[in-house]
Amino acid sequence: MPRVRLVVAYEGTGFCGWQLQAGDRTVQGDLEAAIGRIVNAPVRVHGSGRTDSGVHATAQVVHFDIPENRADVPWSRALSSLLPDDVAVLSHDIVDDDFHSRFHAVSKTYEYVLWHEPRFVLPQRRAFVWNCGPVDVDAMREAAAVLAGTHDFSAFQNVGTPVKDTVRTLDPVEVLPGLSPQETVWRFTADGFLKQMVRNLVGCLVEAGRGKLSADSVRSILNERDRKAAPATAPAQGLTLVRVLYPGFDSAEAARGGYDHCLGTCGAH
Amino acid sequence: MPRVRLVVAYEGTGFCGWQLQAGDRTVQGDLEAAIGRIVNAPVRVHGSGRTDSGVHATAQVVHFDIPENRADVPWSRALSSLLPDDVAVLSHDIVDDDFHSRFHAVSKTYEYVLWHEPRFVLPQRRAFVWNCGPVDVDAMREAAAVLAGTHDFSAFQNVGTPVKDTVRTLDPVEVLPGLSPQETVWRFTADGFLKQMVRNLVGCLVEAGRGKLSADSVRSILNERDRKAAPATAPAQGLTLVRVLYPGFDSAEAARGGYDHCLGTCGAH
Repeated sequence: MPRVRLVVAYEGTGFCGWQLQAGDRTVQGDLEAAIGRIVNAPVRVHGSGRTDSGVHATAQVVHFDIPENRADVPWSRALSSLLPDDVAVLSHDIVDDDFHSRFHAVSKTYEYVLWHEPRFVLPQRRAFVWNCGPVDVDAMREAAAVLAGTHDFSAFQNVGTPVKDTVRTLDPVEVLPGLSPQETVWRFTADGFLKQMVRNLVGCLVEAGRGKLSADSVRSILNERDRKAAPATAPAQGLTLVRVLYPGFDSAEAARGGYDHCLGTCGAH
Repeated sequence: MPRVRLVVAYEGTGFCGWQLQAGDRTVQGDLEAAIGRIVNAPVRVHGSGRTDSGVHATAQVVHFDIPENRADVPWSRALSSLLPDDVAVLSHDIVDDDFHSRFHAVSKTYEYVLWHEPRFVLPQRRAFVWNCGPVDVDAMREAAAVLAGTHDFSAFQNVGTPVKDTVRTLDPVEVLPGLSPQETVWRFTADGFLKQMVRNLVGCLVEAGRGKLSADSVRSILNERDRKAAPATAPAQGLTLVRVLYPGFDSAEAARGGYDHCLGTCGAH
C-alpha cells in the first residue's frame, strides 16, 4: 500500500483539537472522512503530533496508506473540494512505506503571538493572539535564555498521556515583530514538545515580562521539575504549528514558504 | 448634548453589514445597544457610511450625542466590556456639536485583498481575501490607471438608494504586497464611493488581470456608465474600510497606526 504524506493547514478555532474524538469535530476526523470518501474505505491518518483545541497549524504533517490504485490521486486538489474551508492541504507526495510523520520528525516549530495593547484586541486578530497586556520584552528574553538548551521540561508539561522521557532540547527562542506594533511573535523550536509545553513556556515568559518572575526563579522552576510551581498555561488561540522538519523534508518549505507571514510575523517574503 | 466620535474596528464575517435591520445582527445595532446601556436611553449612532455584509473595518468613524452628565465616560474602555469581541472601539473624543461622521468626511480608503493561488486559500486568511486565482497584475495596474481621476462612476454602482451625483474622484490605485506571496492588496482612496463601488472596481480589475478586458474596454465601460456592461461584483470578505479622513482628523492615525498591517499589507511598522 503506497503511503501518502500531506502538509495540512488549519484554523483551530472551530475544532476540538487534532485528535479524533467521538461526537466532536476534530482535524483528524475531518481528514479521515474526506480521504475515506476518495479511497472508498476507512482510512487512519497519523499526524506529527496533536494540537489542542483552538491551536492552529500552517504546516502540520500527516501520513496514511492508500490502495495501490489510488497512488496517482492529486490529493491537494481532490481534498480541497471535500474539506471544509478551515482546513487546507498545501502539499502531497508519496513516501517510503516506513515513513512516519510522528516518529521521524527531527524538530518542530511553533509560533505564539502576544498582543500587548491592554484594552482591546483588533477583532480581525482575536482568533490568533493572546492579549497579555504590556510586558517587558527584555525580561522575557532573559527568561527565555534560561529555558533554551537540553533540560528535563517536566515543570512545563501538563497531565495527560505519560511519557517516559521528559528531556527535550529547546533552541534559543526567537522574538519576531508581529503584524502590528501591538504584537510580538515568539518562535519555539525543539526536537519535540511535551503536552502543552509551548503554552506553559509562554505563560512563564509572560509572568517574567510582568515582573512577577525573575530569570533566576524561572531557572528554579525548571530545575525543580514541578508543574505546580510554574505559571498558568497560556491560551490556545495564540499558538500555531508552523514547521515539522524531517531528514530531507521541511514542511514549511513544502507549504511553499511565506505562510508564516499570514499568521503573525511580518517580514520580507 | 455633547457629541462623541469613535473610531471602530470590526470583523464583518458575523454581521449583516453596518446598517440597522430588524432581526439581523449589524454593527450599528450592536453599537447602539451597548452605548444605550451606558447612557440608559436609546441612542442613534451615525456612521461615516455603510459597509456591506461581510465587509470589515479597521477605522470606521461614528458619532452620537449623549446626555451632558455622560461627557466624561471613557468610551473605548467602557464599551469594550459591553461589545462582542468582533467589534472594538479604538479611540474616542468629544467633538463640536456640528461634526458629522458622514457629511464631513473628506476621503475614505478601502483595501481589497486578492489571493492568487488557484487551488486553496490558507484557512487563517479565508475571511479576509478573495481567491481570484492567477492574474496579470500589470494588466490590472493598467486598467486601474484608466479608472483614476474624476469620473461619473455609474457603471460601478449597484442598485440601492439613488444618489443625485455619481461623480467621484478616485486617487491612483495603490498595489501593495500582501501578508504572503499569494496575496496582493489593492488600496482605493476617493472623496466618496457609490454603493459597492470598490467591489465593482475590483471585479473589473480582476477581469482585466484574467485577460478578458483590455484597459480600453475598461475605459469604454466607464464612459458608457452602464452597470450591465461592467463585470460582476467582487465578494465582500476581501474588503476593509481602513481610513476616513476629515479636516484635522485621520481615523487610521487615531486608531494608532499599524492596524492595516493586521489586515493585509505587509510593511515596516
